[in-house]
Amino acid sequence: MHDWLTSIHHDGSPMYVRGSAFDLGAVVTIRLRADREAPLEAVFLRTCPDGEESLRPMHLAEEDRVCRWWQIDLPLQMRHTNYRFLLRTQIGVRWYNAAGVVGHYPTDANDFTLLADYAAPPWLRDAVFYQIFPDRFADGDPSNNVRSGAYIYRGRTVHASPWGAAPRKEFGAGEFFGGDLQGVAQKLDYLEDLGVSALYLNPIFTAPSNHKYDVADYTQVDPHLGGNAALIALRRGLDALDMRLMLDIVPNHCGATHPWFVAAQADLNVPEVEFFTFRRHPDVYESWLGVDSLPKLDYRSQRLRELMYAGPEAIMRHWLRPPYRIDAWRIDVANMLGRQGPSNLGHKIGRGMRRALKEEQPTAYLLGEHFFDGTPHLQGDELDATMNYQGFTFPIWHWLAPANPQPSSHPTVDQHPLSSADTAAQMRAFRAAIPWQIAVQQFNLLGSHDTPRLRTIMGGALERVRVAAVLLFTYPGVPCIYYGDEVGMQGAGDPDNRRCMPWDEHEWEHDLRALFQRLARLRRTTPALCWGGFQQLYAAGDTLAYQRETAEERLIIVARRSDDGLQRLPVRHAGLADGTVLREMLSGAEAQVTGGHLPLVGLGAVGAQIWRVG
Amino acid sequence: MHDWLTSIHHDGSPMYVRGSAFDLGAVVTIRLRADREAPLEAVFLRTCPDGEESLRPMHLAEEDRVCRWWQIDLPLQMRHTNYRFLLRTQIGVRWYNAAGVVGHYPTDANDFTLLADYAAPPWLRDAVFYQIFPDRFADGDPSNNVRSGAYIYRGRTVHASPWGAAPRKEFGAGEFFGGDLQGVAQKLDYLEDLGVSALYLNPIFTAPSNHKYDVADYTQVDPHLGGNAALIALRRGLDALDMRLMLDIVPNHCGATHPWFVAAQADLNVPEVEFFTFRRHPDVYESWLGVDSLPKLDYRSQRLRELMYAGPEAIMRHWLRPPYRIDAWRIDVANMLGRQGPSNLGHKIGRGMRRALKEEQPTAYLLGEHFFDGTPHLQGDELDATMNYQGFTFPIWHWLAPANPQPSSHPTVDQHPLSSADTAAQMRAFRAAIPWQIAVQQFNLLGSHDTPRLRTIMGGALERVRVAAVLLFTYPGVPCIYYGDEVGMQGAGDPDNRRCMPWDEHEWEHDLRALFQRLARLRRTTPALCWGGFQQLYAAGDTLAYQRETAEERLIIVARRSDDGLQRLPVRHAGLADGTVLREMLSGAEAQVTGGHLPLVGLGAVGAQIWRVG
Repeated sequence: MHDWLTSIHHDGSPMYVRGSAFDLGAVVTIRLRADREAPLEAVFLRTCPDGEESLRPMHLAEEDRVCRWWQIDLPLQMRHTNYRFLLRTQIGVRWYNAAGVVGHYPTDANDFTLLADYAAPPWLRDAVFYQIFPDRFADGDPSNNVRSGAYIYRGRTVHASPWGAAPRKEFGAGEFFGGDLQGVAQKLDYLEDLGVSALYLNPIFTAPSNHKYDVADYTQVDPHLGGNAALIALRRGLDALDMRLMLDIVPNHCGATHPWFVAAQADLNVPEVEFFTFRRHPDVYESWLGVDSLPKLDYRSQRLRELMYAGPEAIMRHWLRPPYRIDAWRIDVANMLGRQGPSNLGHKIGRGMRRALKEEQPTAYLLGEHFFDGTPHLQGDELDATMNYQGFTFPIWHWLAPANPQPSSHPTVDQHPLSSADTAAQMRAFRAAIPWQIAVQQFNLLGSHDTPRLRTIMGGALERVRVAAVLLFTYPGVPCIYYGDEVGMQGAGDPDNRRCMPWDEHEWEHDLRALFQRLARLRRTTPALCWGGFQQLYAAGDTLAYQRETAEERLIIVARRSDDGLQRLPVRHAGLADGTVLREMLSGAEAQVTGGHLPLVGLGAVGAQIWRVG
Repeated sequence: MHDWLTSIHHDGSPMYVRGSAFDLGAVVTIRLRADREAPLEAVFLRTCPDGEESLRPMHLAEEDRVCRWWQIDLPLQMRHTNYRFLLRTQIGVRWYNAAGVVGHYPTDANDFTLLADYAAPPWLRDAVFYQIFPDRFADGDPSNNVRSGAYIYRGRTVHASPWGAAPRKEFGAGEFFGGDLQGVAQKLDYLEDLGVSALYLNPIFTAPSNHKYDVADYTQVDPHLGGNAALIALRRGLDALDMRLMLDIVPNHCGATHPWFVAAQADLNVPEVEFFTFRRHPDVYESWLGVDSLPKLDYRSQRLRELMYAGPEAIMRHWLRPPYRIDAWRIDVANMLGRQGPSNLGHKIGRGMRRALKEEQPTAYLLGEHFFDGTPHLQGDELDATMNYQGFTFPIWHWLAPANPQPSSHPTVDQHPLSSADTAAQMRAFRAAIPWQIAVQQFNLLGSHDTPRLRTIMGGALERVRVAAVLLFTYPGVPCIYYGDEVGMQGAGDPDNRRCMPWDEHEWEHDLRALFQRLARLRRTTPALCWGGFQQLYAAGDTLAYQRETAEERLIIVARRSDDGLQRLPVRHAGLADGTVLREMLSGAEAQVTGGHLPLVGLGAVGAQIWRVG
């Protein structure tokens, strides 16, 4: 067998880590699968309890026509147990960790990791999120709309535009369309019908801009969005449908109209002065990327920490309590939180925030915005997840978007498509750097209010949007639909990506919406997609393929961006024996494994398939 | 140009990071070198100040017949600045970090790193260490020798053996040969003649065993080694020769005869009880790897931290002060320090220790023993270095030792030689995980009291020992000779690796000693070897080659483990133009670069060369 190395597999899913509970002191069983023809003489589990290396032989526990399983018990002695495998083979010792097989002793950085006593939000397992930009989703109560000229925002009067008009760059964040929480509540049936189980709302606290990242009051829902009463009503509506709610908070900075900042600017002797960093009082101060309407909050202030998350009546605790009972926080610019030049309190604030919020509500989901490498915050003691731009969104875009160099793009933007191998490698690198328990909670998205829309990225091509959707709902992590992507909305950068949701069904791409609907239901009812293992099967030419599996079911997902001639997918290294019959879930096609390969019956030049065994 | 990617180079050395000081707030210049034919359209420096990505274009600063240099200024805004390069090429965007060039966006884990305000011991730059196991190096005062039967050690009387007899396993750590600090002092001329500039002494504090890792008194030099007076005299002798001194301390555990433990075992109410972890008082307690003579110290005790390193009269401060003024601590089992199951205070203790000891003596060198992946302790705020087993010793052994499978070795030991590519990859992985400033301080060794001796590993073959020695003195980091390796001593595992130093010159391998002498002097007088850049030039077949360089000098080191037929080394990617003349420093041979290659004139089947430009 030539490429037996590709059959070596382990991940943190229940087929590979068996245990009834992951409490400190519990014993779990670690399993590794390999092709039965793989020339393995012995397999050892490598751990490092108390900092000292331990290499213990695993025993051959099971075999079938294709595979062998090696296993060993592992006591969880630490909160964070890292491990990897030493493979003694006929060609020498190899190491296998979350980054793959290497021929030399590796650093521990890509070890597999098990978290003990880690509070994972159980409702996340089968969650399907839907992101709503409140001003643009639905106008439930026109009486609360911002009126043109009602107030001054950053030196200009605000502007009310009619629903459905194209947002205009010249109005900036001072343009309003009237969407509100009442509108969201009225559309819950639509969302339930789509298969959504959780909402992510962009900021709703009182703030002068349409995006509300410039918070003026962390304790009040903006009256133009319906105020606190509308949130309570929405909560009730969500409860009736067993839906979850995530709000967006900005602990990194506040708006310049926030009373803390107003007071601190007015008087150097007020206690709020320490919440900010004045370079020259009152006008020169640290702000978010130099935007002076967003003064940076300085977490060296213990009092600020108390107010924001730590104290008994802290803002972030408040909204987790009745009557709001939100289920999750999305933390804006989590990458910058607590960091100011030489002062880096990022991890300290992250840990403190987790402690306080999990104490308040152990099943709360703590999601951080992070456009770069957020993995240092994803080790079990800070965030439950980040918005998975680098581990999912960007590699998928970069792989799938039609090659269409835009001469105007920034010179650091790659105008060549990402190779399939590099796409898989990037996604693996970001998975390998975090525990599996976190990887299955990562917040996967195909676009947001901060990016151009998926369909626009895909050059308008619906078949590419469909491929992306299949990847979104089948990749490990929690999928999130950006409002309107399911009906084929287009949009370039801000504000074009924040157009009003079209409620005239004639404007919808019905086939696309049906696909989203189908995928959402499939996702929610298929354990292998919710928490099953992940094995990359193929990443070459123009095709990506991976397996998701539990003991009861196996799914093989195939995505292709152009016709690379691949007609038969190698699957023996996935543990599939010849003669196994698979059914493609979107088309109903059937195929049988022959000579270690699955015939890709019916796969289009640009297309995706979900094959299920049995 | 086919392999232009291999010409992309940057490291933390002065050719690539220009700046007069690395203070917080200082501005340094970051430079990247590439072949002038490399299809680079633009190069960007990627940093992440305050957690937000910054991509700034570098400018083309310089070019010669072979290379182009790109550069940009970088303000050091944080204590720990990580950075990498985005290369816009004709084939798409590539990223370049300390692990090499990748085709996809990487995590930050292998970014280059610059430490600001990092106190590096300046005397380390040209240091050559020599490790001495005091009982076995030289007996300067026979009157202080342990006598047979003088006391009981672990249930048996101690045994005195005559100088030069083979250490006997059955005597264990209770066998003594009479070596002492007076003996070391008497041999300083020998060490100076060898080219040594710093001593590393295995533990010398009062303890019943010959290795003295079972400390009974951290404040007294063992009387059998000459007591405190002999250390003071040794210090004086070292001062006269401008030599440095590193002592070995065991903060992880003490000996069971230490008064702290004796008191804690006798009475549960003494304050020392909290220094230990009794599972069942007085007999069941945490100990080092279960060895009951070595009770583990529990750093959850603040009082213990004060006594060991933090308090004004702490043990580790004490020996840094006059009259001892030691220059460095080697911290035994630094990997385990402060770790006990779920309690992991390792990093906290590491940071506290650094703070206290650098406050006491800013130029002190803090070296930790670490047989595994010590890189998390090497980020600038804990250790200055680890014993570089995984980043140097083991890959070199594994690459260079003759293929001679030992049927008795442990099944996890690889009996196949490491490929040249994997050898270079392992060394790179351990370099890439730490800042360059730390990499040049790593403590490189070819064996120690804890391993078989180099020559024995090499199957006795002196030509392989010679290759290893060339690598030791030319690889980034601080070289250390294990006593007697320079005269060709042999020895398998403990205690055979701790034979007495032979002072009868007839027993020496004089040619080998002359090579060590020559390499030590070369190292000490060649800036490129002390702190010059490092570029791997070749790692294939049975040959490894790398460049060390400063603006003034370039050295190319070539090592070969068997004749792989390579006759011309590619060097264009090292920046060497055709016509450049190089001289081989060990043989005096000369050669000229032709067609981008250096003819390896005079390289033996098993051999090493040091080529110098000019």
